[in-house]
Amino acid sequence: MPMLHDAVKYDFGSDNYAGAHPAVLEAMVAANGGHVGSYGDDPYTARLQEVMKGHFGADARAFPVFNGTGANVIALQSMLPRWGAVVAPASAHINTDENAAPERIAGIKIVPRPSTDGRLDPGTIPSTRVDEDDVHSVHPLAVSFSNTTELGSVHSVAQVREIVTKAKDAGLLVHCDGSRLANAAVAAGVSLGEITEGVDVISLGATKLGAVAVEAVVVRNPEAVVGLEMLRKIDLQLASKQRFLSAQLLALYEGEVWRENASNANAQAARLGEAVAALEGCSVLYPVEANAVFAVLPEGVADAVRERGWHFYDWGPAGIPGAVRMMTAWDTPTEAVEAFVRDIKDCVAAAR
Amino acid sequence: MPMLHDAVKYDFGSDNYAGAHPAVLEAMVAANGGHVGSYGDDPYTARLQEVMKGHFGADARAFPVFNGTGANVIALQSMLPRWGAVVAPASAHINTDENAAPERIAGIKIVPRPSTDGRLDPGTIPSTRVDEDDVHSVHPLAVSFSNTTELGSVHSVAQVREIVTKAKDAGLLVHCDGSRLANAAVAAGVSLGEITEGVDVISLGATKLGAVAVEAVVVRNPEAVVGLEMLRKIDLQLASKQRFLSAQLLALYEGEVWRENASNANAQAARLGEAVAALEGCSVLYPVEANAVFAVLPEGVADAVRERGWHFYDWGPAGIPGAVRMMTAWDTPTEAVEAFVRDIKDCVAAAR
Amino acid sequence: MPMLHDAVKYDFGSDNYAGAHPAVLEAMVAANGGHVGSYGDDPYTARLQEVMKGHFGADARAFPVFNGTGANVIALQSMLPRWGAVVAPASAHINTDENAAPERIAGIKIVPRPSTDGRLDPGTIPSTRVDEDDVHSVHPLAVSFSNTTELGSVHSVAQVREIVTKAKDAGLLVHCDGSRLANAAVAAGVSLGEITEGVDVISLGATKLGAVAVEAVVVRNPEAVVGLEMLRKIDLQLASKQRFLSAQLLALYEGEVWRENASNANAQAARLGEAVAALEGCSVLYPVEANAVFAVLPEGVADAVRERGWHFYDWGPAGIPGAVRMMTAWDTPTEAVEAFVRDIKDCVAAAR
Amino acid sequence: MPMLHDAVKYDFGSDNYAGAHPAVLEAMVAANGGHVGSYGDDPYTARLQEVMKGHFGADARAFPVFNGTGANVIALQSMLPRWGAVVAPASAHINTDENAAPERIAGIKIVPRPSTDGRLDPGTIPSTRVDEDDVHSVHPLAVSFSNTTELGSVHSVAQVREIVTKAKDAGLLVHCDGSRLANAAVAAGVSLGEITEGVDVISLGATKLGAVAVEAVVVRNPEAVVGLEMLRKIDLQLASKQRFLSAQLLALYEGEVWRENASNANAQAARLGEAVAALEGCSVLYPVEANAVFAVLPEGVADAVRERGWHFYDWGPAGIPGAVRMMTAWDTPTEAVEAFVRDIKDCVAAAR
Repeated sequence: MPMLHDAVKYDFGSDNYAGAHPAVLEAMVAANGGHVGSYGDDPYTARLQEVMKGHFGADARAFPVFNGTGANVIALQSMLPRWGAVVAPASAHINTDENAAPERIAGIKIVPRPSTDGRLDPGTIPSTRVDEDDVHSVHPLAVSFSNTTELGSVHSVAQVREIVTKAKDAGLLVHCDGSRLANAAVAAGVSLGEITEGVDVISLGATKLGAVAVEAVVVRNPEAVVGLEMLRKIDLQLASKQRFLSAQLLALYEGEVWRENASNANAQAARLGEAVAALEGCSVLYPVEANAVFAVLPEGVADAVRERGWHFYDWGPAGIPGAVRMMTAWDTPTEAVEAFVRDIKDCVAAAR
Repeated sequence: MPMLHDAVKYDFGSDNYAGAHPAVLEAMVAANGGHVGSYGDDPYTARLQEVMKGHFGADARAFPVFNGTGANVIALQSMLPRWGAVVAPASAHINTDENAAPERIAGIKIVPRPSTDGRLDPGTIPSTRVDEDDVHSVHPLAVSFSNTTELGSVHSVAQVREIVTKAKDAGLLVHCDGSRLANAAVAAGVSLGEITEGVDVISLGATKLGAVAVEAVVVRNPEAVVGLEMLRKIDLQLASKQRFLSAQLLALYEGEVWRENASNANAQAARLGEAVAALEGCSVLYPVEANAVFAVLPEGVADAVRERGWHFYDWGPAGIPGAVRMMTAWDTPTEAVEAFVRDIKDCVAAAR
Repeated sequence: MPMLHDAVKYDFGSDNYAGAHPAVLEAMVAANGGHVGSYGDDPYTARLQEVMKGHFGADARAFPVFNGTGANVIALQSMLPRWGAVVAPASAHINTDENAAPERIAGIKIVPRPSTDGRLDPGTIPSTRVDEDDVHSVHPLAVSFSNTTELGSVHSVAQVREIVTKAKDAGLLVHCDGSRLANAAVAAGVSLGEITEGVDVISLGATKLGAVAVEAVVVRNPEAVVGLEMLRKIDLQLASKQRFLSAQLLALYEGEVWRENASNANAQAARLGEAVAALEGCSVLYPVEANAVFAVLPEGVADAVRERGWHFYDWGPAGIPGAVRMMTAWDTPTEAVEAFVRDIKDCVAAAR
Repeated sequence: MPMLHDAVKYDFGSDNYAGAHPAVLEAMVAANGGHVGSYGDDPYTARLQEVMKGHFGADARAFPVFNGTGANVIALQSMLPRWGAVVAPASAHINTDENAAPERIAGIKIVPRPSTDGRLDPGTIPSTRVDEDDVHSVHPLAVSFSNTTELGSVHSVAQVREIVTKAKDAGLLVHCDGSRLANAAVAAGVSLGEITEGVDVISLGATKLGAVAVEAVVVRNPEAVVGLEMLRKIDLQLASKQRFLSAQLLALYEGEVWRENASNANAQAARLGEAVAALEGCSVLYPVEANAVFAVLPEGVADAVRERGWHFYDWGPAGIPGAVRMMTAWDTPTEAVEAFVRDIKDCVAAAR
């Protein structure tokens, strides 16, 4: 199969516009050849367990899945009885970007909470469980927060601790949508384990971090889940040749690739954010804490920049004309950021 | 990541014990690098459409998904209203091997039909739809057959035609679970298009055929489906970096790899089946038409062979002591078959 | 509101063509007036618990619901984890007459078993649970049998015992669809408790027995269910003015009305069955054990009888021309049976 | 069955603490006797269609169901494709009081909107549909408002018109949860048809208005629904002896009983609200527009009043100490209001 795309073109549309880190493809090649057991009965999945224990503690178990929505649905469903609901920020991916998959295939109601910066405000966590005898009310039995958030912010270790404490005091389980957990840990300057201390179940990202297509449900608290492996099958997230999923995760998480990749994405976003903020008439909407830059450009500039071949999205939820989201990725080169900024600058100048 | 397994060990447990064809990994490498649109907005997915039109006709559209159960659920759900049910052989994968995923996440009742050889007996297809005013009854609105079947048999072009005719006459849509469609086409000596003539929607296999992790829902009749892309997202089967899924499919289906891989699997099964049938006290349960061999071994032989390091499964559904299922794969070498047969032979001799 | 129907016209279409027993309406009147707690917090629901303990033992608890399909879905859902399936005869109401409600709203796969007489053949009950580690297979964790069955047959106390023993030995729970349990008990000459000895959960019928609209989920084994009250609400079966549902159940089950009503229905079916069997060219398909008569009438006779104003259904599942189902009810008068038989006899004579 | 409760005790806990209007029980008696077709094939259900056309126009069709949550789920499910969501006030019954039944059994995501008074703020209705090609976002395709609302407020004819206009302009369907529609129409001084002008589908209440157990899904716009009768069965809301459900609806809606009952409930709430507001230290939280009074009582008063035998609920959502909800019903006598107020007054005095 010939190459059909421009392999040196970089963009700012999404971190899943990026390809795979070479180590990921090399790991898949290494895992190839011969026959091994399917559905997780293979040495790569076994090795993955050890690596994840290294990150998340001796009780941790990792269940490779295909994508982030899958990880979230399985994680939450395994944590909840049929009548359980989940408290999350209104801007959470599970609430806004999954076509209501949690509700539709798992019957999980998301109870949205106001959030100005994408973080789960601990003050919006219920202080107690709803009375078990109350069959009418919605029963939140877990909270879910994203790290990093959909607005590019990062929950600090202290903020995670506060969420965990508040939730546990109320008898609620804690889920972290860690589709960009590496970016959060790097931003916070801590380990993956530290940034998820006290969290029961994590949707651990990999695809955006440089994998081809894999995420993992990581269970830190085995008592928090029921039937997870059954649900992974039922919810269509069980891979037959699981060795290839585990190999991708090993490529990223066994050594330092996760940290290097997240560091580059975060650093390039910081570079981009600073440069855009410095442009006349431009501003940055939220602090740039990880790999997302939300900015406001002068009227007409976004489209003019796009005409020069760049992709990035308008940011409708802000409700501000000219608001855009620009994402950096594990592979974003400095040159691409510089070229992008030059074009924005030109267009800003032309628009005046 | 180091290699952790024996890359020259072959087995007979399942065709998903096999790894990936080199062309598949090469295609993923070719598709790598730079940024391209996500969720299918990429040149590989576009190219895939052309390739699939070549196989399945100008109306065909292909939707890459992660796994076979996912392909089946999305295909059937997109073909049915909320009250639709599906007629299928009792031995069908959707009825026995998917932990009831069609029922559980899509509300699709499978109406099982008796089948002695895994094929859908056209005589078991309803002759009319249930009256729309009858809200009590189950409403089969589609039929599903597998090709090849779970018992290793192959629906011929004529048999497919009979199913299609019977179903269409009754006003029912037709789905083909083609998780091993290439093996069926090769066995029948026809093209992929010929073996699915008249079928509305196909779950087109790739993983067992030499991919890493991808299948496709192929729609031949666009009027047969509603909301398929919405459902692919909702049912957790939408890949962000879809270029890598499409690349795998292109590696197999753009040229002749699909045919070569299926041919080898089928030929090795034929070789294995003949050899086993020739052993004293051994017999073959069903005609070996594709890449599965169902055999009956003398008491104790299966376990003795396994002690020599081989994997293959007992075949419980047969209800016969000593019944086993042995699968060949796209990469099964002749030497492996010969070594396996030698060990069976030794064990048979030792058991006497 | 004026009467709009002929209140002395009786028919043989279904036992739910019948109205309500006077005691039922009187009980609703007695329960009327003033304010009492809703959703079951009322003295009639409390009294119902005592009455049901009298029938089903000291551990029994009764949960009034609206209809039989509701009772079945809630009962089974409360008995099963998300991956549980149910073994039942293919002819069971849950498999054929509920528009797949168990699958569609509760994700419960029904695993149908062949049955010639509507009974659950104990030989078709699995002898063990499927291995918990097998995430692919369907996991039957309960069996369900109907008493009386959809073919009018009755499981005897000994047959129930055999089902219970077989199921318990396999680690499966037992559900009885007792939409016509009173008819079964009367036919067997035993109490309601005896005919359900060892059964974990019962869908206890009332509507067909002379109520307006109520059934009950009766739990004999409290350890067999989880979250039943939550599920009753979620599955849309929780009545606000529950006093009126419980009152109906009390009217039937506190005294002997249940027995009298079932006795009349059974006796009239016996009368009808004998009379039809005695007619030239007519035969009875199955033994008449309760309140259903399945008969075969000579060609054209069924329609001719209908032209005289009688309603009853053709019985398609038999696959026999002229097969019909004729149901008697709690209120069927002897005169109606005699008049019906006279008309059949006339039509048979005319058809010769 | 003997009377087990105090039939002259009235309370303020809920309008479903009330019993049934005599005309309702009389209608059930009139509909009793003899055999009629089941599942809606009866003259009472036919007559109901005429009555509902009288209220809601010539296109209207009514589908009797068992309860309000059932009516809401079926109405919304029939209005939406599998990926449809519903915009509703956060305080809506479907969002807060149905244990997430819409999500759990029908996969319908509720998108909550802020509302200070229980009404659906037209400014929170989306101005357009989400792009059909956007498979990630939630797709609101209908709006739902309650009339009266859960906070006792009433949408006026003009407010309904504004909702309808805004929704239609955006391509959204309109559902009205009319569990207390009669109270709303009476409060607005208009007909049932006028208060639902432009609404596509209505959940028409009856139980709280004096029925035993029945509501109706009323379709004003036949093009707004798909498969409603199938869904009524699947969602466990189809009554076999439907004549008794239709008879209840006829008793209330054929003449003026609906208006008289709603008028009394509203008038008694007005009386109660005025009296409570006049007490020292007491205030009314929201304008009393229909049959709910939300009040704030001095500390300790609510419990003291309860010790005198009255039932009413604390109103937690207000987040105000001493906030309570007091409901009047179709049968609330003036004497009960007066006695209740006297006791509140006494307790207020005692608490000073």
